[in-house]
Amino acid sequence: MSDGVLIERDAALATVVLNRPDKLNALDKAMWGGVGEAFTMLDADLEVRCVVLRGAGEKALGPGADIKEFETERASAAQAAEYGALMHRAMNAIGDCRHPVIARIQGLCIGGALELAVMCDLRISGQSARFGIPVNRLGLVMSHEEMAGLIALVGRSTTLEILFEARIFGAEEAMQKGLLTRVVPDDDLDAELAAMTERVCAGAPLVNRWHKAFANRISRGLIQGEQLNDFERSEGFSCFDTEDFREGYQVFLEKRAPEFRGL
Amino acid sequence: MSDGVLIERDAALATVVLNRPDKLNALDKAMWGGVGEAFTMLDADLEVRCVVLRGAGEKALGPGADIKEFETERASAAQAAEYGALMHRAMNAIGDCRHPVIARIQGLCIGGALELAVMCDLRISGQSARFGIPVNRLGLVMSHEEMAGLIALVGRSTTLEILFEARIFGAEEAMQKGLLTRVVPDDDLDAELAAMTERVCAGAPLVNRWHKAFANRISRGLIQGEQLNDFERSEGFSCFDTEDFREGYQVFLEKRAPEFRGL
Amino acid sequence: MSDGVLIERDAALATVVLNRPDKLNALDKAMWGGVGEAFTMLDADLEVRCVVLRGAGEKALGPGADIKEFETERASAAQAAEYGALMHRAMNAIGDCRHPVIARIQGLCIGGALELAVMCDLRISGQSARFGIPVNRLGLVMSHEEMAGLIALVGRSTTLEILFEARIFGAEEAMQKGLLTRVVPDDDLDAELAAMTERVCAGAPLVNRWHKAFANRISRGLIQGEQLNDFERSEGFSCFDTEDFREGYQVFLEKRAPEFRGL
Repeated sequence: MSDGVLIERDAALATVVLNRPDKLNALDKAMWGGVGEAFTMLDADLEVRCVVLRGAGEKALGPGADIKEFETERASAAQAAEYGALMHRAMNAIGDCRHPVIARIQGLCIGGALELAVMCDLRISGQSARFGIPVNRLGLVMSHEEMAGLIALVGRSTTLEILFEARIFGAEEAMQKGLLTRVVPDDDLDAELAAMTERVCAGAPLVNRWHKAFANRISRGLIQGEQLNDFERSEGFSCFDTEDFREGYQVFLEKRAPEFRGL
Repeated sequence: MSDGVLIERDAALATVVLNRPDKLNALDKAMWGGVGEAFTMLDADLEVRCVVLRGAGEKALGPGADIKEFETERASAAQAAEYGALMHRAMNAIGDCRHPVIARIQGLCIGGALELAVMCDLRISGQSARFGIPVNRLGLVMSHEEMAGLIALVGRSTTLEILFEARIFGAEEAMQKGLLTRVVPDDDLDAELAAMTERVCAGAPLVNRWHKAFANRISRGLIQGEQLNDFERSEGFSCFDTEDFREGYQVFLEKRAPEFRGL
Repeated sequence: MSDGVLIERDAALATVVLNRPDKLNALDKAMWGGVGEAFTMLDADLEVRCVVLRGAGEKALGPGADIKEFETERASAAQAAEYGALMHRAMNAIGDCRHPVIARIQGLCIGGALELAVMCDLRISGQSARFGIPVNRLGLVMSHEEMAGLIALVGRSTTLEILFEARIFGAEEAMQKGLLTRVVPDDDLDAELAAMTERVCAGAPLVNRWHKAFANRISRGLIQGEQLNDFERSEGFSCFDTEDFREGYQVFLEKRAPEFRGL
C-alpha cells in the first residue's frame, strides 16, 4: 500500500491515516487507491470492531484532492473517469466496510476529504474544523456517485447550498446542517473519540455488523421494494442463535458487564 | 384483548395505553399482539379523529420488550421470527392506521417502546424523558422492519449512532436528532398534548386521513415510480366533492369556525 | 404572460415576481400558469446564472391560492384536477429549471406560496416571516405531487405535523424544521440575498447546472436503481473538457479570481 495511507492497530480498533502531512493530506491518485485497499482489507478482518479515519497531524483531515495533479491525472473527461473510478471505489469501500467506521475531523475538511468523512458511519469533529466543497470555483463537478452520499446524509437542498454557494463554514454550522454526529472542544477531541470507540467496541460485534448491513440495505431501498432474499431476511433473527446473545442475556439477568467474542 | 393494552375513548379522541405499570410497561408477547389489534380496530372506526399512544403511570412509555420472556419466547432464531412477526404487525398497524397518531412520551422510552413511538406520526415528550436502543449490549439485533421506520425518521447515520453507541440520552438531544416533534416541560405535557390533539381534531377528518395515506404512499416511493393507480391519483382532488370542503369554504368567507362532519 | 407574474433581469440574475400586491400575492389560476411559463422560459435562457422567486411588496411571498376563486375554478373534483395540473406544472418548472433557484421570503409564506418556496433549491427568509399550510381547516387536501416536495425537504413526520396541526409558525421554527436555508434579520434580507446570489453566480454556471441535474436524478432514485444512461453517467466527468475548468484550474495555480463564461 502507498505510504500515503497507513493502517494502525490497537487491539480491535483500527485507524486509517491519510498520511501526507506536508501537503495537509491532500489526496493524490495513489492515496485514493490506498483508502480503497485499506478499507477492503479491514472489512475482511473479523478481529476488528471499529475503524477510525483520520489525517496525519492536527491541521487537517484534508483539503481534498491534490489539485496540482489534475494536469497529469485528470486532464480530460476520459482520464477523469478513470480517476473517478478510484475515488468511488474508496468511498464505497468505507460504506461497505462491515465494521462501524468513525471519521475523526480536525482542521480542514474540504472537498474530497469531506466526501470521505460523509461515507463514514459517524463523524466527530473539533470545534475549530472548517468544511466546504467549493468545486464550482474550479469549474469542477462532483459526480453522481460522490453526491449520492452527501444527499443521503443532509438531503438535496443542503447539498445544493454547499455546492452552489461554495462557502467554507465552521463545525457548529456543519452540525446544524446534519453533516456531523458530534462537535467537541478541540482539546477534548481525542478523549471524546476514545469514549465513542469504547462504546462501539463494547457492543456485540456481530450485532454492529448486522446493523450496518441492514442500514445499507434499507438505504438502498431494498426493504420497500421487498427485494430482500430469504437469507437476508432471516439475518434479522440470526442473533438469537449466537453465543453473544446468550452472554448478553445472562449478563442482563446477573447485572454484570458482558464479554462479547463475536460468536 | 390482553389487559396489557387498553383503549380509552373521549369522543373522537382514542388513547391506546401500554398497561403494565408494575413492569414500567415492558412489552410482553401478548402486549405486542394487543397493540396490533388496538390500532387495527381503531383504523376501522370512522368516528375517531386522533389516536394517542401512552404508557400507564408517569414513569415510562416503556423500557422495551420484556427481557425476562426471551428464554421462553425468543430462545432460537425460529421462535424469534414468530415473535418478530408480532412486533412488525404492531408497528405496521400504527403506521397504517388511517387516523393521525401521536405518541405521548414521559420517563423511559427505550428499545421497543421507542420503536413504537417512531411509528407514530407525531411525538410529544416531557423534558425529563430518556431515550435509547442499547440492544448491542444484549447481543440482540433490530430487524430490517424495525430499523426501516427509524431510518425514515432520522436517517441512516443517526440510526447507526443510536445503535452503535447504545447511549441513553435526554429529550433535548432526541429533539435535535429529529426523533421528536416537540419537547415540553414535564408539568405541561398533558396540557400541550391536549392542545395538539385539539388542533388535529379541528381539521376535516377526511383531509387528515388523505394526507396520511398520501404521505405513506410517497414515503414508500410510489410517487417517484409513478405507480399510483388512477383511483389513488384521483384522491388528490376528491376533497372538492365533500361536504366538509363546502363547509370549510363557506366558513372562510363568513369568518366563522367550521364544523366538520367527516362527509 | 399574465401581469400577475413578472420577470426582472439584472445581468445573469433573473427575478420572478408574484405580482398581486393588493391581494398579498394570492395565486390565481393565471398566476399558477404564469409561474410555470416564467421558469420554463428562464430554463431555456443560458445567459441566466441564478433565479430568485419573490413576492411584490414586503408583506408576503403569498398567502397561497386565491380562495375566492374556488367557487369558479375548483368547484368539483374534475375542475380541481385541471387547476391542480397547472399547480403541478408550476412547481415542476421550478424544480426542473436548470439554474439555481432561490426563494426570497418575507411576511406571509402560507399554503401554495410555501409550496412554491419548497420547490426552490435554497430559501432565505426574514426573521418575522410566517409559515403554515392550514388546508385541513378548509376541508382541502394537498395532492400527492404537492406533498412530495415537502416530504423530500423535511420528511414524512414534519410534513404531517404541519398538515395535521395546521399551525402558523415563525421563521426560527421553520429553520429548525428544515424548511429554510437561512434566516436573517428583516433589515438584512436584501443584502444577505445579494451576497447569496453573488456567491452562486461566482461559480462556473455549467457546474451549477450539472450539480442541480445530478441532485434531481439522485433524488428521484435513479442512482440507486442504476438507471442512469451512458450519457448521464458521463456527465459526471464532462467538466474536465470545458474551458471553465481550464480557467478554474489556472486561476487556482495563479491565485487570482476566475472569470467563468459557461463554456
